Amino acid sequence: MVPASASLVEQISSAQQTLRRCRGIVRPALMATIDRLPPSTHQLALYACNGGASGATEEGSGGKGVRQAFAVLAGEAVGGRAESAIPAAVAAELIHNFSLIHDDIIDKDEWRRHRPAVWKAFGTGPAVLAGDALLALAVEVVSTSAGDRCPQALRLLCTALSGLMRGQAQDLQFEDRPWQGPDAVVPEEYWLMVAGKTGALFAGAAALGALLAGGEPRMVEAFATAGQEFGMAFQTIDDALGIWGDPRKTGKPVGSDLRRRKKTLPVLVTLARGDAPARRLASLLETETEFDEQNTAAATALIEEAGGRDLVMAEGQRALGRAHQALADVPLLPRTWMELTALSEYLVSRTS
Amino acid sequence: MVPASASLVEQISSAQQTLRRCRGIVRPALMATIDRLPPSTHQLALYACNGGASGATEEGSGGKGVRQAFAVLAGEAVGGRAESAIPAAVAAELIHNFSLIHDDIIDKDEWRRHRPAVWKAFGTGPAVLAGDALLALAVEVVSTSAGDRCPQALRLLCTALSGLMRGQAQDLQFEDRPWQGPDAVVPEEYWLMVAGKTGALFAGAAALGALLAGGEPRMVEAFATAGQEFGMAFQTIDDALGIWGDPRKTGKPVGSDLRRRKKTLPVLVTLARGDAPARRLASLLETETEFDEQNTAAATALIEEAGGRDLVMAEGQRALGRAHQALADVPLLPRTWMELTALSEYLVSRTS
Repeated sequence: MVPASASLVEQISSAQQTLRRCRGIVRPALMATIDRLPPSTHQLALYACNGGASGATEEGSGGKGVRQAFAVLAGEAVGGRAESAIPAAVAAELIHNFSLIHDDIIDKDEWRRHRPAVWKAFGTGPAVLAGDALLALAVEVVSTSAGDRCPQALRLLCTALSGLMRGQAQDLQFEDRPWQGPDAVVPEEYWLMVAGKTGALFAGAAALGALLAGGEPRMVEAFATAGQEFGMAFQTIDDALGIWGDPRKTGKPVGSDLRRRKKTLPVLVTLARGDAPARRLASLLETETEFDEQNTAAATALIEEAGGRDLVMAEGQRALGRAHQALADVPLLPRTWMELTALSEYLVSRTS
Repeated sequence: MVPASASLVEQISSAQQTLRRCRGIVRPALMATIDRLPPSTHQLALYACNGGASGATEEGSGGKGVRQAFAVLAGEAVGGRAESAIPAAVAAELIHNFSLIHDDIIDKDEWRRHRPAVWKAFGTGPAVLAGDALLALAVEVVSTSAGDRCPQALRLLCTALSGLMRGQAQDLQFEDRPWQGPDAVVPEEYWLMVAGKTGALFAGAAALGALLAGGEPRMVEAFATAGQEFGMAFQTIDDALGIWGDPRKTGKPVGSDLRRRKKTLPVLVTLARGDAPARRLASLLETETEFDEQNTAAATALIEEAGGRDLVMAEGQRALGRAHQALADVPLLPRTWMELTALSEYLVSRTS
């Protein structure tokens, strides 16, 4: 937590500085790792991890780098040198990009980070292969750097991977379920899905960072829990931005998740109320026709009327609180702990 | 090598018995491992690894199980119990099935083992995800079973994966290259691609089997080399069957690789001669129209005329010789060594 006197502007600038610092530490190792790929896959991996159609370096265009930052900060917080957590950070970014590449194929999403998705730019086959290669590379990075902590490191990595994939499978399965009735997706199920799809990799990144930097088992465990909870908080904001995000900042159309009728938390908490606005929202979402601007605006209004936006923001804050709580009783360097909490608070109130 | 007096029938029956024995040892562990997947992915994984639209058990329909047999036999040959090599065998089968699922998406192949490919049966998205899950599961199986040999085991696994993916990327890239001229694919490049695409996993399976069963480093290394060479020998026969295989046995149409104009070894060795039949074959393959029965027959005849079939079979035998050579100077149990060589000889003269 930054001192209470810090203005919002100071908080944002401090968080962005942290992200920039961590990217600066991790980037050379990430690029050197990707350079090990054969030429054809290398080009796609650079495009995915880097930004710029040619794979040219453009700061921040390869995503905010939140997962790598958590790995680095966890390593520093347990008293290790940032360098020792780098493999955890590199692995987290590789896995994150692997999952984005494959997710965009699975969801047929054509845009990612203001650019065509990898499959759209290079074809489905090469995109499948590039994702596979990034996943395999992540395993290699962790196993070659963990030394005598190899079994524990691999256990953390595999837990992250199986959680991630379980979440993705659930998310895919949600698509085929109805908007109302006994088979409708309830918020609790959604929350479980997010624990996998987003929480598992944050948990793995933070715990691996702590482990590789020499953290004791209770620290590693605390970072696993904190990462998990933070990942879920992070997802609630992603969901809110998918409805209320500014298209100029998110790079996606207004209400993009509603247009695509994605079963996200704001929609599910509204539907779960079962009252008149919930039923109106369900019938809107059930219409067979294309979801146009008018429908999107009407659905947004119904969610707001039902208090869906506030409910989701409150859920995010609660998860953030649990994340901070998880770290409260293990010995950590206060300077890094402050940096970490400031970053997480910023990320859970971000607008892009 | 089976005794010189063994008839062909005896040799085949002995090899099939070995495959059956190894499947029997590995199958319960493979099924128990797959059972750890979440329900939606589980169904696809069973379909892929098992055979039968419902995932019902039908002996042999999940493939011959050659990779798992090599892992088990390597473990037995170094003097270990078959059980200790099981995780290597399970991981090899999981990776093999992962690569088949993703390969069929990449190559748009609609049929596999006499049934619709996974993506054709369940959709591309779920198939991408099922492949990912099998890959992650393989990493988990190896890392949880390797104990204090975790770093070495993971190194073998990662070498196999990176080789496999490098080979797949090269194979994909071959598709866009011309049939003749300076940019044409030459047999040496094809051989390098196969070293990755097929050799790497055989190498990994055998070396991991030897390692997990307690083999000394030189045994593990010998099995890595032998597996690699055997994988390449195995691929030459796959290539021959892709042209001359009996459709009733292979489950693919006559000359299926020619119809799809795949750049396989019989074609490439013929083209590399650069003579009149080679030029006629190249112009046939360059035609824009659908490759019909007549074209397929003509191309097959040209390859035979150029001695392409014999050249490929001879390459396969040479690779098999190198595989046996690699094992000649490490102490192995002769009984298992005989079983292994008999199996490999059968597989390099198989007709399906």
